[in-house]
Amino acid sequence: MEIHQNFNFIIETLGMVSFSMSGAFAAMQKRLDPFGVLIIAFITSVGGGTIRDLLLDIPVFWIHDLRMCALIFIPAIFAMIFKSIERRFKVTLFIFDSFGLGLFTIVGIQKGLNADLHPFICLTLGTITGCFGGILRDILLNRVPLIFRKEIYATACIIGGSAFLLLAKYTQLSYTFVQVFTILLIVTIRTLSVKYQWQMPKFYGTE
Amino acid sequence: MEIHQNFNFIIETLGMVSFSMSGAFAAMQKRLDPFGVLIIAFITSVGGGTIRDLLLDIPVFWIHDLRMCALIFIPAIFAMIFKSIERRFKVTLFIFDSFGLGLFTIVGIQKGLNADLHPFICLTLGTITGCFGGILRDILLNRVPLIFRKEIYATACIIGGSAFLLLAKYTQLSYTFVQVFTILLIVTIRTLSVKYQWQMPKFYGTE
Amino acid sequence: MEIHQNFNFIIETLGMVSFSMSGAFAAMQKRLDPFGVLIIAFITSVGGGTIRDLLLDIPVFWIHDLRMCALIFIPAIFAMIFKSIERRFKVTLFIFDSFGLGLFTIVGIQKGLNADLHPFICLTLGTITGCFGGILRDILLNRVPLIFRKEIYATACIIGGSAFLLLAKYTQLSYTFVQVFTILLIVTIRTLSVKYQWQMPKFYGTE
Repeated sequence: MEIHQNFNFIIETLGMVSFSMSGAFAAMQKRLDPFGVLIIAFITSVGGGTIRDLLLDIPVFWIHDLRMCALIFIPAIFAMIFKSIERRFKVTLFIFDSFGLGLFTIVGIQKGLNADLHPFICLTLGTITGCFGGILRDILLNRVPLIFRKEIYATACIIGGSAFLLLAKYTQLSYTFVQVFTILLIVTIRTLSVKYQWQMPKFYGTE
Repeated sequence: MEIHQNFNFIIETLGMVSFSMSGAFAAMQKRLDPFGVLIIAFITSVGGGTIRDLLLDIPVFWIHDLRMCALIFIPAIFAMIFKSIERRFKVTLFIFDSFGLGLFTIVGIQKGLNADLHPFICLTLGTITGCFGGILRDILLNRVPLIFRKEIYATACIIGGSAFLLLAKYTQLSYTFVQVFTILLIVTIRTLSVKYQWQMPKFYGTE
Repeated sequence: MEIHQNFNFIIETLGMVSFSMSGAFAAMQKRLDPFGVLIIAFITSVGGGTIRDLLLDIPVFWIHDLRMCALIFIPAIFAMIFKSIERRFKVTLFIFDSFGLGLFTIVGIQKGLNADLHPFICLTLGTITGCFGGILRDILLNRVPLIFRKEIYATACIIGGSAFLLLAKYTQLSYTFVQVFTILLIVTIRTLSVKYQWQMPKFYGTE
């Protein structure tokens, strides 16, 4: 259990750090000033979990926990100082971001299960937790949310989250294994979809 | 009372179904992928009521009720499968959407009255319940919220909601009659305003 | 204490009035109809405080208080009637808006301290209270939030809020003095930055 908790903490940390850096880089690309960059990094990191906690009517996860704020602001400041490293960090960032997406989705589902909600609603909460940080970032920076445009993003959440719910309920596999497997599943779907430019079929529309 | 409850349930169902389909069609027009369409349909359907419940600090209405999710996702999937029927459904959709607007406005006002709030604040809550689903949909799809542009929308909410509050308080008319009348009033204002292209006077501005 | 309370109430009133008028003028510039103008004025005025109260899980400040609604809608209606006075009021408005920003930031921090939160998190809450009304206004009117573009805005909040926390904790100055001083500090930073077109250094990006 101890190891399990530490394991969760490590990956959640990586997820927070990486979402923060992704927000910071997106804001610097839009030429915001340093405080604007901090605000965007903060919202990208906590947005999804905050909406989840408001919906569940539980205390917002960062409001009593200063470590969370450090996990957001320190990487964002780091990103601003070492801005030139963006190119080299791009792949690392993408991996972190995908792990963050995976872990946050699973965390969201677990919080829903803890509140005795129906698995389907837990899946919705997991998707909200994983995706809404990025949606808010894109709205604030005035672009069409990436999630709705190019890459397979929500789809990865939903497939990985469904796998988590099914494996945790109908198999005897260890909980930690199911967690790791579904997180890696989300990361793998994201990575392959970006590498091979997979896209979900889209509807033909007249914009 | 039984009939009254069933009556509410039937129209609320039609409202959810129709907001979901309006979200789905708007998302397909913007060429989102199927999961993007589901997310937009979900947010359009529950957005207004979710903000209302958060403001009232009561449990979010869909979080313990799987039927609500079915009322959102099934019509959205239906809309995706039968996409070609869009043209024929346009009028039906518009009517459903207007009924949804009417019912949701009245539901919002009733929830406010149940919480012993001032009628004026109840009217605000009703307007939020009726309008914010569409506002969120338009923000996520990166267009100026329709509500702020063309048709008489919020105005219909506010007139119908005011009529509901006045008639329920100062007349002896049956509650169900007042409900039906004000819902039909909102639908009628919406329908006539679109048919005859009524617009509220606007302010001359330099955008 | 009595004087202190009254003092808070007077400046908060001025802040609400001024945010409402700033929202109304922004909406009229975008040619919204009168109800659209009211909705934007309402959201600009209460947006920041509402998000703060939701995060703190305390009752939303305007939901039981009709006076607050009057403080929002009456100035907005006034602004619509006397639209032609916009030019003469511009400076007055800017000053009110800056005072509003200052007071709202301090109010946000105080509410955080009352809830026994860490000063750093209180500063975050203060910034949210001061800035999010304007952010929501700009998102709804489909422009890049001004806060992220031109003027020194969040920066003024953060500097003034930090000064408030430091002076209130580490000095023996009277609480009212610290309040007045930090509000004036925020107003001064805003005013000078607009007058002399100060800008924070920005990151070079390729949009």
